[in-house]
Amino acid sequence: MLEQIDLDVSLSKREYEQRIASLQARLYDMEQVALEARVPVLVIFEGWAGTSKARTIGVLTRRLDPRALRVYPITPPRTYEKQYPWLYRFWLKIPAYGELAIFDRSWYREMLAERTGEGSAVRWRERCEDAVAFERELAEDGAVIVKFWLHISRKEQSRRFKRLLEDPLTAYQVTDEDRRQHRRYEDYAAAVEDLIARTGTPAAPWHVIPATDKYHARVTVLKTIIDTLEVRLGRKAVAIDDEGQAESLDDSAAAFRERPRGNGRGRPPAVEASLDGAPGHAPGLAPAEPARPEAAHILRRVDLSLRLDDKEYSRQLKRLQAQLHLLGLELYRQQRPAVLVFEGWDAAGKGGAIQRLTAELDPRAYIVHAIAAPAGEDKTRHYLYRFWRRLPPRGQLAIFDRSWYGRVLVERVEGFARPDAWRRAYPEINEFERQLVDFGTIVCKFWLHLSPDEQLRRFEARQHVPYKAWKLTNEDWRNREKWPQYEEAVDEMLLRTSTPAAPWTVVEAEDKRFGRVKVLRTFVQRLESELGKVNL
Amino acid sequence: MLEQIDLDVSLSKREYEQRIASLQARLYDMEQVALEARVPVLVIFEGWAGTSKARTIGVLTRRLDPRALRVYPITPPRTYEKQYPWLYRFWLKIPAYGELAIFDRSWYREMLAERTGEGSAVRWRERCEDAVAFERELAEDGAVIVKFWLHISRKEQSRRFKRLLEDPLTAYQVTDEDRRQHRRYEDYAAAVEDLIARTGTPAAPWHVIPATDKYHARVTVLKTIIDTLEVRLGRKAVAIDDEGQAESLDDSAAAFRERPRGNGRGRPPAVEASLDGAPGHAPGLAPAEPARPEAAHILRRVDLSLRLDDKEYSRQLKRLQAQLHLLGLELYRQQRPAVLVFEGWDAAGKGGAIQRLTAELDPRAYIVHAIAAPAGEDKTRHYLYRFWRRLPPRGQLAIFDRSWYGRVLVERVEGFARPDAWRRAYPEINEFERQLVDFGTIVCKFWLHLSPDEQLRRFEARQHVPYKAWKLTNEDWRNREKWPQYEEAVDEMLLRTSTPAAPWTVVEAEDKRFGRVKVLRTFVQRLESELGKVNL
Repeated sequence: MLEQIDLDVSLSKREYEQRIASLQARLYDMEQVALEARVPVLVIFEGWAGTSKARTIGVLTRRLDPRALRVYPITPPRTYEKQYPWLYRFWLKIPAYGELAIFDRSWYREMLAERTGEGSAVRWRERCEDAVAFERELAEDGAVIVKFWLHISRKEQSRRFKRLLEDPLTAYQVTDEDRRQHRRYEDYAAAVEDLIARTGTPAAPWHVIPATDKYHARVTVLKTIIDTLEVRLGRKAVAIDDEGQAESLDDSAAAFRERPRGNGRGRPPAVEASLDGAPGHAPGLAPAEPARPEAAHILRRVDLSLRLDDKEYSRQLKRLQAQLHLLGLELYRQQRPAVLVFEGWDAAGKGGAIQRLTAELDPRAYIVHAIAAPAGEDKTRHYLYRFWRRLPPRGQLAIFDRSWYGRVLVERVEGFARPDAWRRAYPEINEFERQLVDFGTIVCKFWLHLSPDEQLRRFEARQHVPYKAWKLTNEDWRNREKWPQYEEAVDEMLLRTSTPAAPWTVVEAEDKRFGRVKVLRTFVQRLESELGKVNL
Repeated sequence: MLEQIDLDVSLSKREYEQRIASLQARLYDMEQVALEARVPVLVIFEGWAGTSKARTIGVLTRRLDPRALRVYPITPPRTYEKQYPWLYRFWLKIPAYGELAIFDRSWYREMLAERTGEGSAVRWRERCEDAVAFERELAEDGAVIVKFWLHISRKEQSRRFKRLLEDPLTAYQVTDEDRRQHRRYEDYAAAVEDLIARTGTPAAPWHVIPATDKYHARVTVLKTIIDTLEVRLGRKAVAIDDEGQAESLDDSAAAFRERPRGNGRGRPPAVEASLDGAPGHAPGLAPAEPARPEAAHILRRVDLSLRLDDKEYSRQLKRLQAQLHLLGLELYRQQRPAVLVFEGWDAAGKGGAIQRLTAELDPRAYIVHAIAAPAGEDKTRHYLYRFWRRLPPRGQLAIFDRSWYGRVLVERVEGFARPDAWRRAYPEINEFERQLVDFGTIVCKFWLHLSPDEQLRRFEARQHVPYKAWKLTNEDWRNREKWPQYEEAVDEMLLRTSTPAAPWTVVEAEDKRFGRVKVLRTFVQRLESELGKVNL
């Protein structure tokens, strides 16, 4: 079967560049539709060693909303995972309703390793049945499942290995397992054919992708996912996609296309400016002191006139994202964990800033936690429990879209926490962050600030775009009415919890472009000072 | 400081036996009060090697409701746990509001190992501060924390090691770490004194327990916990305790005292009888078949006249619990996981049966999952996800008080699951259990059956005991009205999901004594056939 695949198909770089941005945008649309429809999506990448699965996944995820996305690199099972039935660790990774889970290798890795190694024929058949049952159950529960086999010839694999081995920086990528696979290419190919025959089902079909030409492969992968989602999510998807087509998708600025449904209205040109609004920390304040300190009004002193024009924005964004890409690798190399906290007014652009920040990161290297009201086991324990359990391991970046600061913001203002509880939270949070920093974690915290007028403009803009209206809730309007109380809470938070090890950065986000660039620049500078400079 | 402790205190076996049952009963009362008051409780056991911490914990937990209880044996951190700040793995183990967590060793194990090993003085101080902050935060959130140091002299430790080493069956218990501790007893003692000075706080005080005499130690431990809880939980506790005093606590039958607040009214004497009501499995049934099979009415054929008198009950229970104790060790030795499912009518006695079953098990060897409506992340995924993530590792027993069968019972009858969803669940569940069994898991499932009349009697009894009234909800009354629909659902469940690998046992629970004994006997027989006989 595999020999029927035409491996010579290709696409010019020009054609690729023309098409890829539009496909990424359509995929973003479909991600949003799936989220709204609460349909979980699983995309599985298997294929020959040397087919750059990780880079394909990078192209795929670049423009997605990272909050609904999980990328799982699958290695052989760890010791403690062997304490459970083999599918246990995959059940634990199934996406929530509306989420997209991407598997860089999957349960099929374990199966193929056994099949081409010591495993018996009986065991192979059992595993295939287990996998089919697993996928069928998820599909019947509403999940969309797309499985890829990235295919190259033995000759092409040989060429790729040679190229990787020539460069000492990439030679490590060719593992012993890969060499074994190459030596026994024909055996593996037979196993893969058997696998595809046994586990390709209508609910979870395999797509064999000719991967000799990377451009063609990437475009095919994206198109396949989009087509599958459009068929499964029906009319709705088409409607949104049509709308999408009306847009000018190919933004030659090569930076992020400003989505016109959002708030990307033109801005008056402005020069770049910078203000480090981080307030001083106040270690001398007694933590149990009940009265509000006579804090200077930190927020009122923030300069909201700061702006960036389109061209400058694109230029700076591109450079910062490239730096972040390298710094992300360095973070992993040095095995340092990092924690980013995003707090800010509703509609201040937290999501957009996070998206720009993660755009060029290896999708396996970070995770975004969107924090709403606690539920389930999080609700029945100390409020810090749910953040402890979401901490990044060494080498990973965890981004919190809202965070433990909810304790001293929404819980304080809305009365969900008693005064003694939220007052106690300042030293508790400082202690928590100190323990992270002591462990070697890089902690960066942002408050995204805008004016009430600008917030109102953004709310109204959201309200009038049917596709974005769901993002705006009654709660947002209610919060708005409590602006002064929130302002007081934010001022006190900035004053009490900005520590040398974990300082706050106040971001002037009246102009989204300026805000995003400041977030990225701050984080880049912080990483450079912690990890050392990287050269572009 | 430690040398001030009088290590010669002791208690006769007779005195011990007179007092221990009453203390265990009072502790059970306090556990219930804490559960109702949603107060989390942490009990931490540290102490010299050879002080039988595990057996003390066994005495402590014997009569507790295992559903609100978690016992954590703490070993040195695993590789993946080292990826996080050191308190991470303990934050993940904090009890939910109302739960009791018992730590057999704790964060102090790691600290003491470092202190008496390679750790620096600075690190030691930091760790002490971290521990104090951790406990203070939990206490301020409402937790009760009790910390024990079980103390013996160097000479006594020497005697105990000798005794353990003489018997090849116990020699393995003396580890290299223990020998090192013994050689450097004085260094350790100094470290412990420093530890107690630094980390004993009003919120989480240390209690040094002379442990030369085990009887005295156990009584002191129980009394200390009870006293602490009574002070913290206030009036309520005293009231309940007074009530408890009025009962005849010292049941000379030496089996479980029948709690008079429950439903332990006298029963007419009856001979023991046995009926294996497990229905045949029906592998031939097409899983997708939508219509209800013409099932024989399984439940109506159950003989509810079966009874056990008090004496026979005590005799059998004692013997079965002793067998279970040994089989539990064997399960661990053979590294087999086991899963027990308890389903049954409201008030059929699931909790009581589970309590008897776990009474003589090593508290570290099992876990009880009480399953109610899904919440949090469990709610946003396939319904089997929350059971996959609660599977036992090798060597452990997981007991489900209600289970995945909710899908075809309450979710079916109440319409929470659409007909196609609950119909699909039969083959899904069979597949799930097959994967468990293939992995080596021992799966045992019980349906506890009683008559509507007996249920009504039990409801009314609960209603009239203020202390038990909270167990009875409006939902229980509503469920009762739907008896015929539930009966139909249960019959179909028993027919469709009783497989050779994972059979159902229908338990005649009209008489609680008979039901409990049947549950234990069935499980003992199952374990014996899977693990081999054990000799008492």
